[in-house]
Amino acid sequence: MKPPPGEFELIERLCAGLRLSRRTLVGPGDDCAVIRRPRGAQLFTIDSMVEGVHFKLAWGTPQQLGYRALAVNLSDVAAMGGVPTACVVNLAVRPGLTAAFFDRLYAGLNDAAVHAKVDVVGGNITTADQLAITIALLGDVGQATLGRDRARPGDEIFVTGTVGDAAAGLRILDGKLAARGAARKFLTNRFLEPAARLAAGQKLAKLRPVPAAIDISDGLCQDLGHILERSGVGAEIDADTIPLSLAYQAALGDNQELALNGGEDYELLFCLKRGYSEATLARYLGVAVRRIGRILPSEHGLTLRDRAGISHPLAPAAGWNHLRARGGRGK
Amino acid sequence: MKPPPGEFELIERLCAGLRLSRRTLVGPGDDCAVIRRPRGAQLFTIDSMVEGVHFKLAWGTPQQLGYRALAVNLSDVAAMGGVPTACVVNLAVRPGLTAAFFDRLYAGLNDAAVHAKVDVVGGNITTADQLAITIALLGDVGQATLGRDRARPGDEIFVTGTVGDAAAGLRILDGKLAARGAARKFLTNRFLEPAARLAAGQKLAKLRPVPAAIDISDGLCQDLGHILERSGVGAEIDADTIPLSLAYQAALGDNQELALNGGEDYELLFCLKRGYSEATLARYLGVAVRRIGRILPSEHGLTLRDRAGISHPLAPAAGWNHLRARGGRGK
Repeated sequence: MKPPPGEFELIERLCAGLRLSRRTLVGPGDDCAVIRRPRGAQLFTIDSMVEGVHFKLAWGTPQQLGYRALAVNLSDVAAMGGVPTACVVNLAVRPGLTAAFFDRLYAGLNDAAVHAKVDVVGGNITTADQLAITIALLGDVGQATLGRDRARPGDEIFVTGTVGDAAAGLRILDGKLAARGAARKFLTNRFLEPAARLAAGQKLAKLRPVPAAIDISDGLCQDLGHILERSGVGAEIDADTIPLSLAYQAALGDNQELALNGGEDYELLFCLKRGYSEATLARYLGVAVRRIGRILPSEHGLTLRDRAGISHPLAPAAGWNHLRARGGRGK
Repeated sequence: MKPPPGEFELIERLCAGLRLSRRTLVGPGDDCAVIRRPRGAQLFTIDSMVEGVHFKLAWGTPQQLGYRALAVNLSDVAAMGGVPTACVVNLAVRPGLTAAFFDRLYAGLNDAAVHAKVDVVGGNITTADQLAITIALLGDVGQATLGRDRARPGDEIFVTGTVGDAAAGLRILDGKLAARGAARKFLTNRFLEPAARLAAGQKLAKLRPVPAAIDISDGLCQDLGHILERSGVGAEIDADTIPLSLAYQAALGDNQELALNGGEDYELLFCLKRGYSEATLARYLGVAVRRIGRILPSEHGLTLRDRAGISHPLAPAAGWNHLRARGGRGK
């Protein structure tokens, strides 16, 4: 059967027809929508995990599935610098699953909710052929939200934690990558139980000028690409600064493919004006931070400078421009 | 394969484990959650339509599908007396559908959004085996929200518009009921393009004491049952007062089965202290209103009084009690 149109195309087409009121400060195209409220603003986002597309039950426990379903939404609020408040859950339930299974899934969901101080305020159940968990999450945000459109030439690019772990973990779970012992456990846990960088996002939103930021859900290069698109800039990243965990190196050696292009890490990538040291930022944000490159004028495109100092183009200079019109109203 | 646990059981189990903060005024178990905001309160709800479960593409146009996906959510906000403000859309996309199909679906969704002054602020696309549209909707509400737990013995029960039309329309579309001409068009349209009673709900929320209300999505008797459960009361309805459209009568004669137990009408059912005439209410709410029965003490259960004046028990007196503990925190 003919494959459906791609996600990008479908979001673009949706945005093309939208008429948004003045209370919508940021529409589709960022990690969350931003809605003006009488005091401050509110974040609103939705994400879905479908069995066979985003997960297999054999990969982890029902608790981990429930936990992860909320965590990936929390990460979107983190990427905007917000405080998550309340969510509603739509569960598509297929035959063959027991009440005990859902009790365990709910327990994991509640763990994530309690940990992030989020209320699960509503739910809807439907039957379907595939198990799917769709969560819509609200968050509060102050005067300034992080956003994808704030990067300026001269900014430096940072990333929290380490990258590529979750993608490696996913391949281990799927039998496509071998790892054992502590490395296996670390990498698979990074996929199954991602930690949204909420506190770091909230701290970043207090900096001035407000940084550009995004969570790494699609992969470092692709998510940086989203910032470049929306900001109308280019960038250069230094291969030898990409932060790799010891477990990642144990499983993959110096192969950076998953670190650059694997997703699901839910670390934050952000861009700051020059002058911040990694150590200062790590103390301020409460998480390890690595400087991985710099924002350049748009004609530069996106390039990767390898360990020998040779630059490799990852995307053409014009690559970002055609998408810049989509989504989002000026903030 | 073993069928999954029922919707009711799964919602109960979800609620059993929830820990809600004081800012959640109403949790799962009503048409919408109610969240305290610095000024007033906010409604939050989620609903999903799955191909093969809730709709078939052959039943209508993609526009009607998009329109209906938002309308059923708008009806939940109407049933709480709120003003809908913003929604996010999750689209599960299966192979075999074209970009043009989604453009038309979006057009219908946007029609419903523009008509109700709702901003579509965000979207998420995933692939799946079944087409599914899941929408989470926010609304604003003033000091008082309509709710399922407000019915008191002595209240009179009213319903807007006519009931059973959408269920008849669904059966016509599915080839299970014959109808032709204007009756066919009216009934199928009532299913395909339901009109959420937003203005009527907002007007009802201004009455004191604040009425109990629910939208008729599951069927008149079942939805009245939800009010009886949550309010801890019983009720008697008079068969000969159930408002039937001429089209319904043309297709079904005096068979009230679909009017009593068919769903998808998205009319409002509400309970008021005695003293309101149908004419006064119709003028005030801007929609036809019919008085269909009265709230009684809980030991009465739910009974239907037929045209001969004979009462038929529809649910036992104890039927509502076991569910009263679930969901919702005191308002």
